[in-house]
Amino acid sequence: MSSRGSDSTGSFRHFPVHNVGGPRTGAVQDAVATEEPLEIRLGYTLPDGKRAQRSISVTMRTPGNDEELAAGFLFTEGIVRRAGDIESIGPHGPPAPSGLVNVLRADLASDVSVNLDRLERNFYTTSSCGVCGKASLDAVAFQSHYDLRDNAFEVMGETLQALPKALRAQQSVFEQTGGLHASGLFDTSGRIVVVREDVGRHNTLDKLIGQAFLQDRLPLGDLGVIVSGRASFELMQKATMAGVPLVAAVGAPSSLAVELAQEFGMTLVGFLREDRFNVYAGPERIR
Amino acid sequence: MSSRGSDSTGSFRHFPVHNVGGPRTGAVQDAVATEEPLEIRLGYTLPDGKRAQRSISVTMRTPGNDEELAAGFLFTEGIVRRAGDIESIGPHGPPAPSGLVNVLRADLASDVSVNLDRLERNFYTTSSCGVCGKASLDAVAFQSHYDLRDNAFEVMGETLQALPKALRAQQSVFEQTGGLHASGLFDTSGRIVVVREDVGRHNTLDKLIGQAFLQDRLPLGDLGVIVSGRASFELMQKATMAGVPLVAAVGAPSSLAVELAQEFGMTLVGFLREDRFNVYAGPERIR
Repeated sequence: MSSRGSDSTGSFRHFPVHNVGGPRTGAVQDAVATEEPLEIRLGYTLPDGKRAQRSISVTMRTPGNDEELAAGFLFTEGIVRRAGDIESIGPHGPPAPSGLVNVLRADLASDVSVNLDRLERNFYTTSSCGVCGKASLDAVAFQSHYDLRDNAFEVMGETLQALPKALRAQQSVFEQTGGLHASGLFDTSGRIVVVREDVGRHNTLDKLIGQAFLQDRLPLGDLGVIVSGRASFELMQKATMAGVPLVAAVGAPSSLAVELAQEFGMTLVGFLREDRFNVYAGPERIR
Repeated sequence: MSSRGSDSTGSFRHFPVHNVGGPRTGAVQDAVATEEPLEIRLGYTLPDGKRAQRSISVTMRTPGNDEELAAGFLFTEGIVRRAGDIESIGPHGPPAPSGLVNVLRADLASDVSVNLDRLERNFYTTSSCGVCGKASLDAVAFQSHYDLRDNAFEVMGETLQALPKALRAQQSVFEQTGGLHASGLFDTSGRIVVVREDVGRHNTLDKLIGQAFLQDRLPLGDLGVIVSGRASFELMQKATMAGVPLVAAVGAPSSLAVELAQEFGMTLVGFLREDRFNVYAGPERIR
């Protein structure tokens, strides 16, 4: 019922669509962003020296940069800390009928000790106060390696305002499909250094962070992140893990995103548009 | 650093914000949608007749309609099938320092046998073809109770086009915060029957479906769902479980959302605007 898009990673596909109104009314072929599961399998060493493997996650994602997605996930979940912790990473097994390989295997170096409890669902509840936002922030504090309070990153307000347009210009799959989340890393001059797209909002950030992680370029203390949508707790948690001092969202932030930024000394900008924005935390980084 | 919003469920809070550009430049108080974890605890009967309890999920959510969220989650995950399966459901334990009770306990009737394996992360990989979109669809087919192929729901194109504005008009928390996902159930005349909002896209649908589930009004074969954002696999899976014949998204669909609609005989509309929309599956339901 669909044909593979021209793009080699399979990040979009064409489907027959009935168009009502709009420029091309009638039956047309339309490009749709691909969503397929990716299973991440981890190879690691047990305390007794034996090797083990385990499937640790299945995420719906847009194919492309799968190694980065997996590496970013492993890093932001606190399983690995530096590129050398991963001995090898890559697609595993034969392609599915769709032609995509949807299993990614990461083998950890033998000296990396793994605490898979961190992946348990209840991680954000382990606090004396019970289940609450504060407990979630405490869990981030427990995992995060970088202190952003004294980070001297600065950017002009006008530079921020130009970012949404610059991000959009680099969203190649969005261009085709009209609907995909994106995140980008930008420097103090407003140049967007890397962009990643995905149907999953959190995946865009895992890909961005994984890309830097695999090159051993963390922490990202001299860069900011722009996200195409809203800023949630999960996005801020990932940015904190990567040592990013400033997050700018085109959409609205959540209460816990604001509280996380306050607690960790980050700058959080929301509703970023060509003519305006709101600063929810860390205004000292904006000139 | 924040004060509780005037709304009694705590669905938004006020934070000090620096406004740059826009109508209210300077330091102001801004309403932000609340994001707090909700833990769902399940009480159930073991095969040997003993009672057990287990924490089965922690989700970030916007407080309000927590019972519906939990009931919808339990239903769309295939743990319960009808309202009578849940003996009691409600907040559990003392409030967190934020004043919110973030633990929800659901006790199942003693004759409900529970298969918690379904909650395991790898559910969508259990297929002969390995990890792929097809396997994800097979998993839905395994769980879903309703066949939508012969469902006779019909709606006028003009009726659909009026829905986004009608949905927005009922989004009370969005009105305050400028950023929150919403879903609504609508009838064939275009009347929006129920609206639910949340920082989590999938939560809006769990709340909608949970609301109907608790009143034993499933399947929702004579209603459609409108979602404020994009249509992903997860949203379509939930709509299928509830027996909803038509999903209309203001944003773009993903490839797997389209494939799910095709496979289960649902109608999928995307890019729904006042003057246009695309039909990705099931055009026969639109007059």
